[in-house]
Amino acid sequence: SGVACAADTTIPSAAVKTAEQLRDKAMHDDTGYRIVTSLTEIGPRLAGSPADQRGVDWAVAEFKALGFDKVYTEPVTYPKWVRRSEHGAIVSPFPQRLVLTALGYSPGTPKGGLTAQIVRFEGLDALKAANPAAIKGKIVFVDYRMHRYKDGHDYGVGSPIRVEGPVIAQAKGAAGYLLRTVGTDPHSRTPNTGVTGFRDQTKTIPAAAVSNPDADQLERALATGKPVTVRLDLDCGIEGQYTGANVIGEITGAKHPDQVVAIGGHLDSWDPGTGAIDDGAGVAIAMAAGKLIHDLPQRPDRTIRVIAFANEEMGLWGGRAYAEKHAGDVRKFQLGTESDFGAGQVWRMSASVKPEARGAIEQIAKVLSPIGVAYDAKRPGGGGSDLSQMHGKGMAALSLTQDGTNYFDWHHTAADTLDKIDPKDMAQNVAVYAAFSYMAAQADGDFGSAPGAFANDGAGD
Amino acid sequence: SGVACAADTTIPSAAVKTAEQLRDKAMHDDTGYRIVTSLTEIGPRLAGSPADQRGVDWAVAEFKALGFDKVYTEPVTYPKWVRRSEHGAIVSPFPQRLVLTALGYSPGTPKGGLTAQIVRFEGLDALKAANPAAIKGKIVFVDYRMHRYKDGHDYGVGSPIRVEGPVIAQAKGAAGYLLRTVGTDPHSRTPNTGVTGFRDQTKTIPAAAVSNPDADQLERALATGKPVTVRLDLDCGIEGQYTGANVIGEITGAKHPDQVVAIGGHLDSWDPGTGAIDDGAGVAIAMAAGKLIHDLPQRPDRTIRVIAFANEEMGLWGGRAYAEKHAGDVRKFQLGTESDFGAGQVWRMSASVKPEARGAIEQIAKVLSPIGVAYDAKRPGGGGSDLSQMHGKGMAALSLTQDGTNYFDWHHTAADTLDKIDPKDMAQNVAVYAAFSYMAAQADGDFGSAPGAFANDGAGD
Ligand SMILES: [Zn+2]
Ligand SMILES: [Zn+2]
Ligand SMILES: [Zn+2]
Ligand SMILES: [Zn+2]
Repeated sequence: SGVACAADTTIPSAAVKTAEQLRDKAMHDDTGYRIVTSLTEIGPRLAGSPADQRGVDWAVAEFKALGFDKVYTEPVTYPKWVRRSEHGAIVSPFPQRLVLTALGYSPGTPKGGLTAQIVRFEGLDALKAANPAAIKGKIVFVDYRMHRYKDGHDYGVGSPIRVEGPVIAQAKGAAGYLLRTVGTDPHSRTPNTGVTGFRDQTKTIPAAAVSNPDADQLERALATGKPVTVRLDLDCGIEGQYTGANVIGEITGAKHPDQVVAIGGHLDSWDPGTGAIDDGAGVAIAMAAGKLIHDLPQRPDRTIRVIAFANEEMGLWGGRAYAEKHAGDVRKFQLGTESDFGAGQVWRMSASVKPEARGAIEQIAKVLSPIGVAYDAKRPGGGGSDLSQMHGKGMAALSLTQDGTNYFDWHHTAADTLDKIDPKDMAQNVAVYAAFSYMAAQADGDFGSAPGAFANDGAGD
Repeated sequence: SGVACAADTTIPSAAVKTAEQLRDKAMHDDTGYRIVTSLTEIGPRLAGSPADQRGVDWAVAEFKALGFDKVYTEPVTYPKWVRRSEHGAIVSPFPQRLVLTALGYSPGTPKGGLTAQIVRFEGLDALKAANPAAIKGKIVFVDYRMHRYKDGHDYGVGSPIRVEGPVIAQAKGAAGYLLRTVGTDPHSRTPNTGVTGFRDQTKTIPAAAVSNPDADQLERALATGKPVTVRLDLDCGIEGQYTGANVIGEITGAKHPDQVVAIGGHLDSWDPGTGAIDDGAGVAIAMAAGKLIHDLPQRPDRTIRVIAFANEEMGLWGGRAYAEKHAGDVRKFQLGTESDFGAGQVWRMSASVKPEARGAIEQIAKVLSPIGVAYDAKRPGGGGSDLSQMHGKGMAALSLTQDGTNYFDWHHTAADTLDKIDPKDMAQNVAVYAAFSYMAAQADGDFGSAPGAFANDGAGD
């Protein structure tokens, strides 16, 4: 916060004042909670499913009902994966049902199921180091127990076990892949699904997650010292291509309609729950923030663009399609970030912007500080999940980190339902998004978006 | 604790000392936890299922392995209810999956499912008061939300909604019955099953429990003011009769082998979980208590009889069969009680005994007090679930109340698995059962068991 010079981006004091009013109003506003309630009534929105299309229709209608100035869709094409049924059991040394869930892009098992001995690994490194002879024809079981953290950093260990693990196991000749659920509830019997890294459909093996109590049971079976045989019976797989849509609503800027502040969430969700925290909340937070700005007496200077992304879950398909399409316009993206870590309160902000815009970021931080957001000037801002792709193209971006202590208790499980969302936490999120978006839209100057900017900020690590 | 007279039952000081040693040893012993671990490896033991027979075989083998002097079975015959599949959905006003579980003795729905409008009641009284015209052809939905209490007393409200509710609804012409799960976890998606009160197989309707988040969803659907239509698709029902077994192990008394202290649990369990807290724990607590008494240098004066009951879950079939068979010998039952409320620590003891045995009960209470058991002299002792039936015939009985704060989070759900049991809590339970059983076995005098004794003690209320 040194002395401002001509090249510095600053936020006019009138805009700061309006942002403070927006923030305070949002803290007592239930628009976000009402939107996510409505969205969960669609049910789970597995990409490519009938409910995916219902979700798209819902988003178009909801943007219009909220009074957004412009509502449109952009197509997103991806392989359609379907889940029909899934069963599992310990066959020996003692017969027992296993509660499991197939992972995204997993193929089905042969008719009658796949029965094989399991071979356990403590984590991904052990699997990587393993001799293929110890794996060939067996079902690999990676048994890493995830713990709760406010920043959810243990997902950094768990996620690769789900994404990369099956690919590594397949390459070493495994017949199938099981993992202890990438989830932090040690007691629930609702395992976390999620995508694998299978890209080549000729190199896949059936892959599933067992709940924590079921993984405990597998450990006890292994502790007997006898061979442990498991049967997987998965009916799932890829059924051709599907074209869905990113759904976009805009509050059109009064001065610079072609310059946009980009916020959003993803519209698709995994199928066991109703996609409340992942990511109904994110869509609702961004929509509600746009709605609150819409309700101001005047339109903001720049456009507020709210994007409800398609198929984030199976590999950022919506985000990647969006970035492909709009990379050439990256300079028009004033600042952006996406909400995709549940509905817990935002407690930390960081930014990847040009040095001359640090003062404006500090101005934003000052407005967000009273509602519990600490500014970390040392961390990059990655833009969230899908918008990480625009950030990769050079969009200036924030990270607005939510409290994820319990996020992985419910993430990608049947328990991802509306009751997990506290309306007050939702309101705080909306306050954060409304205030920052408005300030960015009113800034004198930009935040440094340009092709290839921020390529080495470390946000993707 | 007045002055003892000739008619008073007392426990010799040597026996008190041995009981204290038993208690202290048990507090650091893992026999109970090891037994329940082994039992859960059988998996769920739904009465009449193949795993029920595996459970009986397990119990016979386990009693023998533990060194019990006498091991035998007694037949128990009951209708065999089977669950094949269960699905549910909201059809309108918004389509949505419902996570539900069929209730015991529920019939299946017709092929293609049962689709009907739901009509909501806040509780059983409202249902009882309802005009049949408002119910006829509809699916009754009783929407009572159960809360957590240490003594689990809200089950006194919830349980009749599950047992009596379907019978009342059927009598009023309902097409089906749904209830908000009789469970206290507001967030889990694993509903609690349990038995209904259907006795007459010609007067039944499909009956199921939805999880708390699904009941919330039904409430939101109803709040729209539009008719709410639900589809139930249950494949379940009664398939003839089955004869299972109570499994009994004894440590034979040295002086009075025909006089018994009766303790136990029930061997059957509901099918979604593995029957760890309900009631693997109870079986294990009683078996371990017997084993610790077995390991003393001498046999106790009276016999310690450990009973693993058949089919408690669908209506005390094992307990009723046992009481029918042994009612004539009720005077031989020195004292008894069953453990069937999970694995939380025992925090309260009460007793139904003859007045002359109150001093002996106080002696027992004094030994249990250092491990957290408070004696409530005003409450009756009901003998637990199955053994309530012998108490009804006149057996002197204790109630040993466990901490059930979280019991109904997991009771009769898929989450009833071994991880819910704390080995230290198990050890405390074993300490309580071993110490009281031994003291009762060594008492000079009896506790008042006689035909018809304690008929009006209020234990059955
Ligand atoms: Zn997400
Ligand atoms: Zn996700
Ligand atoms: Zn029970
Ligand atoms: Zn039970």
